[in-house]
Amino acid sequence: MEKLVLLGSTGSIGSQAIDLLTSNEVDICVEALTCNRNVEKMLEQAKIVKPKAVGIGDETLYKQYKDDFAKLGIVVFCGEKGLTEISKNYGSIVLNALMGSMGLNPSYETLKAGKKLALANKESIVTSGEILTNTAKAYGGTIIPVDSEHSAIFQSLEGNKQSEIEKIILTASGGPFRGKKAKELVDVTFREALKHPNYSMGRKISIDSATLMNKGLEVIEAKWMFSVETDQIDVVVHPESIVHSLVQYVDCSIIAQLGLPDMKLPILYALTYPDRVKSNLGRLDLAKIGRLNFAEPDKETFPCLELAYESLRRGGYASTVLNAANEKLVDLFLKEQIKFYDIPKWIEIAMNKFDYDDQLEIDTVKELDQTVKKYIEVELGK
Amino acid sequence: MEKLVLLGSTGSIGSQAIDLLTSNEVDICVEALTCNRNVEKMLEQAKIVKPKAVGIGDETLYKQYKDDFAKLGIVVFCGEKGLTEISKNYGSIVLNALMGSMGLNPSYETLKAGKKLALANKESIVTSGEILTNTAKAYGGTIIPVDSEHSAIFQSLEGNKQSEIEKIILTASGGPFRGKKAKELVDVTFREALKHPNYSMGRKISIDSATLMNKGLEVIEAKWMFSVETDQIDVVVHPESIVHSLVQYVDCSIIAQLGLPDMKLPILYALTYPDRVKSNLGRLDLAKIGRLNFAEPDKETFPCLELAYESLRRGGYASTVLNAANEKLVDLFLKEQIKFYDIPKWIEIAMNKFDYDDQLEIDTVKELDQTVKKYIEVELGK
Repeated sequence: MEKLVLLGSTGSIGSQAIDLLTSNEVDICVEALTCNRNVEKMLEQAKIVKPKAVGIGDETLYKQYKDDFAKLGIVVFCGEKGLTEISKNYGSIVLNALMGSMGLNPSYETLKAGKKLALANKESIVTSGEILTNTAKAYGGTIIPVDSEHSAIFQSLEGNKQSEIEKIILTASGGPFRGKKAKELVDVTFREALKHPNYSMGRKISIDSATLMNKGLEVIEAKWMFSVETDQIDVVVHPESIVHSLVQYVDCSIIAQLGLPDMKLPILYALTYPDRVKSNLGRLDLAKIGRLNFAEPDKETFPCLELAYESLRRGGYASTVLNAANEKLVDLFLKEQIKFYDIPKWIEIAMNKFDYDDQLEIDTVKELDQTVKKYIEVELGK
Repeated sequence: MEKLVLLGSTGSIGSQAIDLLTSNEVDICVEALTCNRNVEKMLEQAKIVKPKAVGIGDETLYKQYKDDFAKLGIVVFCGEKGLTEISKNYGSIVLNALMGSMGLNPSYETLKAGKKLALANKESIVTSGEILTNTAKAYGGTIIPVDSEHSAIFQSLEGNKQSEIEKIILTASGGPFRGKKAKELVDVTFREALKHPNYSMGRKISIDSATLMNKGLEVIEAKWMFSVETDQIDVVVHPESIVHSLVQYVDCSIIAQLGLPDMKLPILYALTYPDRVKSNLGRLDLAKIGRLNFAEPDKETFPCLELAYESLRRGGYASTVLNAANEKLVDLFLKEQIKFYDIPKWIEIAMNKFDYDDQLEIDTVKELDQTVKKYIEVELGK
């Protein structure tokens, strides 16, 4: 039986994982949960799944709640250090559903311990893809993607050879502003940007979806996760989010994974891989859907996508800078301190300013992440 | 290096196979060719691919041409018996692209010899699916499908477990009469029926496509080829023929194979399986295609599809009767001796008349095939 560590159990992915495990016959026990501030919710979850350990990110809340967990016989860890401890010492599989760059160290420690990493935290592979894939190879860890596009690619690669990949084709819903032109988006607010057409997601990811940076980060993720060249990755806009992504092989055949837009499938697949278990999830009925649309992405209106490709071409720390700048800029956009097109503009400025070409190391990545964020804060924060 | 026997080398599939082998870097040599009457074309092919043996179906033509081949150092076989000899004694892989029930014995002998059978001849698995799959199991032969739908399913099953299949979903172009209703089709001629929207095919298959019997035969083929229950097979109409078919798994995930409508890919895949080789075939550009449509099949207007399901439910020889009746009826329709709806009507009559439930045997299958055809000829032939 797999033993699961669930990092970020109170967020969207974490909650769905618990839903899945409690409503389907899956041979997995939950060994640890972590959250940042929503400790009340985690306490409820702990009563249901009965973990051995939990981690609380916020130190004040840790002090406030630790006895509640201790009473249930649960070991309690605190802060980012606690998360890393848990990833290292608990479970055979770690579902990393943490937000932002906080996810990096736990990803690294999971792989270094030779365990399975079910990775929903995009940022860890975006900022440190090369390091993580090398760590996985060196210590026998496995990265299994959790977002729907990479899970689709992962599934479409099963039974095929990596050397026979010609292209990876990521589908993109196009976000809430699909079909709009730049002049219509200049003064757009974060409230309009938060309306994703197919998935209900966190605020950060929703803004990334509106700028297409979400797809840009996925391009970076795909490059590292599937060991392909930058120009082997294509993006096609597919508003219905039914075809979750595709792999084109050298013989011209394309294998794709399809389903209703429901994050629960990639979560379930990551947890049960290499098996599939009977699920109660909604089945796709193509005749009922009737029509699937596809189009080229509008790279002029959404420059973030091209910036992500550019960061891969530059190599080294460029994707780290891109991701750090984007995280801070989205934060400022959500606080209404900057406008929509300040996001790509300042990412480009940051990428030009922090243009290192050194050997990648995990500590430097974390330092650079902070430096870039501070730089954006100083330049634009109010 | 695989040694290929190409049964039916002058037909559409056979010619495309030779095209593929001469225009792509494929590590396969052609060891034998066969044709029925188009011996001039086979002679041209033999000069290019230099086989060790050929088979000529028509005895008069055999006598006329045998010396032309002998001069090239090629052994010449004659008649249906010759085809069977070649399947037994030549090649490591046999591409069976014969027409109709003539394909059965060679399929059987290929599998009995423990070889790979690349199967384009639907009829052999439709009439004798149970026998062939049992023979493959007993003697270590492998059946690799060549039509686009079953190749798509075969590819979508790679790396997955048979026990995790929930449903097989065959796509159907809907044929030239898609959207029409029965009253519009009562007096339709074979010339109108021959216009297939996406593939250029032989006359028999084109009529089967117009009646949807083509899809019915594929349902039967799928049942035997992939060992699923009848109610695990669905058909969805997809006029663009881009999604070639899909497999739905127990976790709700769907894997599909896509590509331009080009028979060369399934042929190539069957010949190179389990590898994929770089091909010069046209690549699919989804953004350029723009839109894919899906709909329920119209089972009232096209009763042949339901008759095929019915033959599977009845079991025993019912699919053999269905196929034999259909072959003869299509022949009569092409000769303008019967009308469009006489095809399903007389298939049903034949299925009710020849309703055996005995143990399946290969000789009985062939006898019954002839009996049913004779019955239809006597009742309807002019």
